[in-house]
Amino acid sequence: MKIINLDHISANPLLPEVKDAMIEAINMDYGNPSSQHKIGEQAAEVLENARESVASLINSAAPKEIVFTSGGTESVNHAVKGAAFANADKGKHIVTSNIEHNAVIRSLRRLKTMGFRVTSVSVDEYGRVNPDDVADAITDETILVSIMHSNNEIGTIQPIEEIGQITKEKKVIFHVDAVDSVGVVPIDVQKLGVDLLSFASNTFYGPTGGGGLYVRRGTLVWPLLDGGIQENNKRAGAANLIGIIAMGVAAKSAKQDMASRIAHTKNLKEKLLNNLPNYIDEYIINTHPEYSLPTLVSVSIKYIEGESVVLMLDDEDIAVSTRSACATGSLRASHVLLSIGLGHADAQGTLVITFGVDNTEEDVVRFLTVLKNVVTTLRDISPLYKKKSKA
Amino acid sequence: MKIINLDHISANPLLPEVKDAMIEAINMDYGNPSSQHKIGEQAAEVLENARESVASLINSAAPKEIVFTSGGTESVNHAVKGAAFANADKGKHIVTSNIEHNAVIRSLRRLKTMGFRVTSVSVDEYGRVNPDDVADAITDETILVSIMHSNNEIGTIQPIEEIGQITKEKKVIFHVDAVDSVGVVPIDVQKLGVDLLSFASNTFYGPTGGGGLYVRRGTLVWPLLDGGIQENNKRAGAANLIGIIAMGVAAKSAKQDMASRIAHTKNLKEKLLNNLPNYIDEYIINTHPEYSLPTLVSVSIKYIEGESVVLMLDDEDIAVSTRSACATGSLRASHVLLSIGLGHADAQGTLVITFGVDNTEEDVVRFLTVLKNVVTTLRDISPLYKKKSKA
Repeated sequence: MKIINLDHISANPLLPEVKDAMIEAINMDYGNPSSQHKIGEQAAEVLENARESVASLINSAAPKEIVFTSGGTESVNHAVKGAAFANADKGKHIVTSNIEHNAVIRSLRRLKTMGFRVTSVSVDEYGRVNPDDVADAITDETILVSIMHSNNEIGTIQPIEEIGQITKEKKVIFHVDAVDSVGVVPIDVQKLGVDLLSFASNTFYGPTGGGGLYVRRGTLVWPLLDGGIQENNKRAGAANLIGIIAMGVAAKSAKQDMASRIAHTKNLKEKLLNNLPNYIDEYIINTHPEYSLPTLVSVSIKYIEGESVVLMLDDEDIAVSTRSACATGSLRASHVLLSIGLGHADAQGTLVITFGVDNTEEDVVRFLTVLKNVVTTLRDISPLYKKKSKA
Repeated sequence: MKIINLDHISANPLLPEVKDAMIEAINMDYGNPSSQHKIGEQAAEVLENARESVASLINSAAPKEIVFTSGGTESVNHAVKGAAFANADKGKHIVTSNIEHNAVIRSLRRLKTMGFRVTSVSVDEYGRVNPDDVADAITDETILVSIMHSNNEIGTIQPIEEIGQITKEKKVIFHVDAVDSVGVVPIDVQKLGVDLLSFASNTFYGPTGGGGLYVRRGTLVWPLLDGGIQENNKRAGAANLIGIIAMGVAAKSAKQDMASRIAHTKNLKEKLLNNLPNYIDEYIINTHPEYSLPTLVSVSIKYIEGESVVLMLDDEDIAVSTRSACATGSLRASHVLLSIGLGHADAQGTLVITFGVDNTEEDVVRFLTVLKNVVTTLRDISPLYKKKSKA
């Protein structure tokens, strides 16, 4: 039986045109883009073509503002640590939010051990940052603000443009972790007023292990990888050329098909949200009704454990997740869910459902039908549920 | 006309079995190895299979000592910066050699701006480090020794095992940049007594943009990429799964075919060295007669510029290089060649010829024939050569 993938945030499948481009690249045996001979020249050309496609997807003013990396995590580490180290002479204070991805949180934790100070602003019940709180948190010592574009667990989209106006006024570098947004919703780095923006290829159906960092011209950032003079001296190392070619093709498709993809996934998301009450009761929708990814629904189902739901749905060939795949194995409740005010029990009962281009309305119906059975089964054996029913 | 690739150190072509494995992986649509459902489980399995093949290639005691990275440069940055930061409380002194790759040199330069001190030992006329010099350079403050296994410009192989005995006795972490050795010559991390060893997939005919870091159990190193808990908490970020699968297959082939590959390239190298006097005169062989890569010849041709030779050979569909592709575009003479005692003029006249499994004896003859014409043409217009001829 075909597995119904409702966990696109963990891994998107490759687009057919991306597969074709990768297979063609594999058979081309490209050389090293830095070489001076013909074998190298061809490689340099396809590398720069990919850079143009990616730059165009986020409306960068020039392709050389794009630094190719090994993925979202490298981009975030590069941006956060690179901006901190390069500007430490101006101050050692950084502002962020309570619900960032672990790549940001742990990069900042690392910097704290090296003398940097971090202020983390809180979020509302849907995970939204108030731009005024960011403005209030900025001091004369602040060198960097790092706020995510969309949250990977609840889908909330932040008021980046408003924050961008504040950082511009206050002359503080603004990094945006847009790993779950680029290629999914329109991103215009010039309109948003960001200085650094991280993204990942797999978010828009390119391969994993590839991504990029947008570095606005003039932004002072140290390389994370020192060595050769690749990527305009911003990121050393031989390029993952096949992956980058694939990312270029995926970026082109994402730009072209964005409106229809948004319409498609938004329809599935609405179908799910509208029909959910007909299948289960006693749940909380964590996803913002307006400012959220069109692809994501976060729902906390009372009296049960999300992990059990994931495993039982898996038995029925349906894939969903409880939280970021990067945090799987951690026993602690999600910091994102606790930050929006959920209790530990509700946080543990949370499912993240993420749609992709390959999903259909039938997938939603099948998911809801199976979910109903799973929830009933789990609640039947739940001490919490029994206690509540008796009350 | 088919291009004769004598620049394998810049980029190796993919092996047929590597191409097949990549294309299969592309069509498999693997999920995220960290996910809890079926789509993720398959991915986790192929990831760990690749780790076993790579561990086996370098005789690591356990696959979990292998950390997959985006390539040699990331591995080196991870090792050097990660060991320095993690052990800074014990001292801030690092020992290295004069002829390391820029990934090591520039990582160390970065560390110097952050309070670390570096002692760089010199090398002999063939680029060999004297282990006694390393022993003498180590002080009570030394936390790390970083010496490359083989040099990427002249091919010299260092006495790693002897240095490993010294670092073990003195309880200093030993990092070996083996980016141009792993998969080319036998590497046994246990026999060598190293704590950290960097390598790259393309060196053994896997794709670029992939590599790894061997971390001996118990070695204290900070991650370079902070975030998720992938790679046993040593390297965050979604894995480049297709690239890693490819590296696993390439590692298996490298182990199996190492003896025949060495015999094949060594034969071509000897043919080149033995026949060179019949084609050109006045040159210096920089490659160590005994301790050097079987694939590499470095030759400094007097009175001409290496870059001109590269471009003229390229016109005849022969690819060679003058130095590391990572340093292309730099106008300064190679620090490696200056360190072995070459003058600036001879350094500028240097060619690096690197053989691979796809080369034949005919390639050597064709190269020598064309080289002779190129050298004659260039010397005819060389002021240096005219001056010398008149003298």
